[in-house]
Amino acid sequence: MPDLSRRLAAEAIGSAFLLATVIGSGIMGEALAGGNAALALLGNTAATGAILYVLIVQLGPVSGAHFNPAVTLVSAMRREIGWSEGAAYSAAQLVGAVAGVLAAHAMFDQPLMQAATKIRTGPGQWFAEWVATFGLALVVLMTRQAVAASVALYITAAYWFTASTSFANPAVTLARSLSDSFAGIRPVDAPGFVAAQVVGALSALVVARWFRASSRA
Amino acid sequence: MPDLSRRLAAEAIGSAFLLATVIGSGIMGEALAGGNAALALLGNTAATGAILYVLIVQLGPVSGAHFNPAVTLVSAMRREIGWSEGAAYSAAQLVGAVAGVLAAHAMFDQPLMQAATKIRTGPGQWFAEWVATFGLALVVLMTRQAVAASVALYITAAYWFTASTSFANPAVTLARSLSDSFAGIRPVDAPGFVAAQVVGALSALVVARWFRASSRA
Amino acid sequence: MPDLSRRLAAEAIGSAFLLATVIGSGIMGEALAGGNAALALLGNTAATGAILYVLIVQLGPVSGAHFNPAVTLVSAMRREIGWSEGAAYSAAQLVGAVAGVLAAHAMFDQPLMQAATKIRTGPGQWFAEWVATFGLALVVLMTRQAVAASVALYITAAYWFTASTSFANPAVTLARSLSDSFAGIRPVDAPGFVAAQVVGALSALVVARWFRASSRA
Amino acid sequence: MPDLSRRLAAEAIGSAFLLATVIGSGIMGEALAGGNAALALLGNTAATGAILYVLIVQLGPVSGAHFNPAVTLVSAMRREIGWSEGAAYSAAQLVGAVAGVLAAHAMFDQPLMQAATKIRTGPGQWFAEWVATFGLALVVLMTRQAVAASVALYITAAYWFTASTSFANPAVTLARSLSDSFAGIRPVDAPGFVAAQVVGALSALVVARWFRASSRA
Repeated sequence: MPDLSRRLAAEAIGSAFLLATVIGSGIMGEALAGGNAALALLGNTAATGAILYVLIVQLGPVSGAHFNPAVTLVSAMRREIGWSEGAAYSAAQLVGAVAGVLAAHAMFDQPLMQAATKIRTGPGQWFAEWVATFGLALVVLMTRQAVAASVALYITAAYWFTASTSFANPAVTLARSLSDSFAGIRPVDAPGFVAAQVVGALSALVVARWFRASSRA
Repeated sequence: MPDLSRRLAAEAIGSAFLLATVIGSGIMGEALAGGNAALALLGNTAATGAILYVLIVQLGPVSGAHFNPAVTLVSAMRREIGWSEGAAYSAAQLVGAVAGVLAAHAMFDQPLMQAATKIRTGPGQWFAEWVATFGLALVVLMTRQAVAASVALYITAAYWFTASTSFANPAVTLARSLSDSFAGIRPVDAPGFVAAQVVGALSALVVARWFRASSRA
Repeated sequence: MPDLSRRLAAEAIGSAFLLATVIGSGIMGEALAGGNAALALLGNTAATGAILYVLIVQLGPVSGAHFNPAVTLVSAMRREIGWSEGAAYSAAQLVGAVAGVLAAHAMFDQPLMQAATKIRTGPGQWFAEWVATFGLALVVLMTRQAVAASVALYITAAYWFTASTSFANPAVTLARSLSDSFAGIRPVDAPGFVAAQVVGALSALVVARWFRASSRA
Repeated sequence: MPDLSRRLAAEAIGSAFLLATVIGSGIMGEALAGGNAALALLGNTAATGAILYVLIVQLGPVSGAHFNPAVTLVSAMRREIGWSEGAAYSAAQLVGAVAGVLAAHAMFDQPLMQAATKIRTGPGQWFAEWVATFGLALVVLMTRQAVAASVALYITAAYWFTASTSFANPAVTLARSLSDSFAGIRPVDAPGFVAAQVVGALSALVVARWFRASSRA
């Protein structure tokens, strides 16, 4: 296994490309779509699903390719990673994610520092984030082959079937609060999303353990 | 093989995510597409094809990943599953599918209980469902590798090439009758669809047996 | 290897589903796209690429999954299939293709027998069909792995990069002359397309032989 | 390994199909999209991603499937290919790329020789090309499996997340300056893109070496 500095670098680089893609393709989609939000979301979806596959195949052998504190949390609870390493992973994910947002803003000649104004709150949105993260964590916990394709296609679907367009990732949520664009979320709405995500991931852990108990028997 | 309770749970969870995706992405597509039904169907298609791949790879090792009473029927006729297990599978699929519809409604802040008003009837529609389910069952019965990708891509195509947008699944049909949205079907039209689906699946069984008889010789 | 009757049935069934998809998704796309031809072509492309992958994986082990007289011609010139078998393959492909067109018309409640009025002629179109079929045959002749995905994605690309939207298949061309819809071609324009396709396939054979001579050395 | 003439032919043919696809699908997209640039880019993206997968799987065993002088440069710096062979590769890529542009123009009945008028310049665009090529080279240098799918999906994403729509290839940049269409770039803007691409590729080499040093330890 690579040393910790390389693993953290991989988590940061992967999170940076993930966020550059989420934000950049959102800006591109909104700029080109002529006001049609379905078209903007199609471009946003294709780009995000594609880069997730690429990053997981590329960086999975280095760091495990979490790019997501909720995934790292579940991984720590299963003792696949230590708690202090997990905290370092989450910090690297957040730093990388913010760098990715800044890179997207720089590419599109926008102010680097922004605060999102897009309102994303209410029980429907919170339930959607619970569903989105429950499903994502269940994929990570129960899928034994084609994991990169599965995660990429899960998010592809979840961008469309959840009312929140599936953030499903606390680092992504915080980073997206720093972009006042298609993919943004008001900073004040971020804690509700993160809470729903953590509960969703833990719910998946319970279900996956029950399934595993069965297959051991 | 996992015990029956885990297998039924896998069928229910998979059917729930499948229907949450079909209904949720239909609501999302219709809400964003500005009246352009082709755009709504593109989003609906991408989401459904993607989640099918994910669910079959994830839950196939647990339950076989039927998520479809027509597939379970064919499986029982080939004696891969007992008739009483098959009945339990179908019940789990139906319960899961209805739960998925309710989840989609909850995420999008809609009334949980609805009755579809979308008319889907007539010989063209019934023939389309026969074609759709015949093709799907033939894929399941004759494909020996890459089954998850094949089923996902078959439905991706069938959403567009059949006049009915390919329900091809009795549990999906009944559950979609409970959603008055893009993907809905009037309850009174459901029996015609289900009948065409059952005949389509049995037709595929006859054809697949003839092909198999050859390869044995 | 399965007996000839099963192989011919596989060619016919595959060609039928291919044409039902090409014509059906063209009708669906045109009906839903509100006059936007790019949207109709996106749906047509997604459906055609998807079904090609499905059919090649499913029926390749039975018949080789040609579904295309130009591919069968090249196969016969490489002595992988006898000339009389090749003639039977081509006949099965044509019968299946016409059946697929009729099935699409029936599903969409259209007159079964039609004659296309869409004009597709001139040097640009013929050159496009030469390019399309040259590229397709080169993929078939030179690709040693992931053939189903390669053929499906080649056609996905060629629907957009060739001025003719890539028929690249004499059976498809003749069958599409029988549908006065998005994917149709005037019967009088079909011979020009077929001639360009045959020359394109034979050109690819020359190039592939030169490459092969190298790798033997 | 095939002899050099076959390897150069593979680089030229692959680059020709790549550019025919980039330019051809750009023309098709713009012609059909009714002024909606997001739709044109969706078609352009689907076609380019698809053909990249096809070409890399098909021609990778012959030449390594670079199709890109920046990739060849990195390959030479890693001593996987000699410098004189690398120069020949780059010449073949450029000749092929120009031939592909001419083929696209011929298919769409356009003047063969054109000069692009589309302005693509400024720090945001240059930074975007640095990001695009850094990411592409990092994928090539660090991905050990599923390389064809990874490169294809990376470009799929980068068409949307970079402000420049990701040229990421000096041969592609020069060839696209010869087409006054959707995918064009003013000849005077090409050197800035090429410089950013070369720096991006070399930056990726530094990062990949650091990661590799780790995994050796």
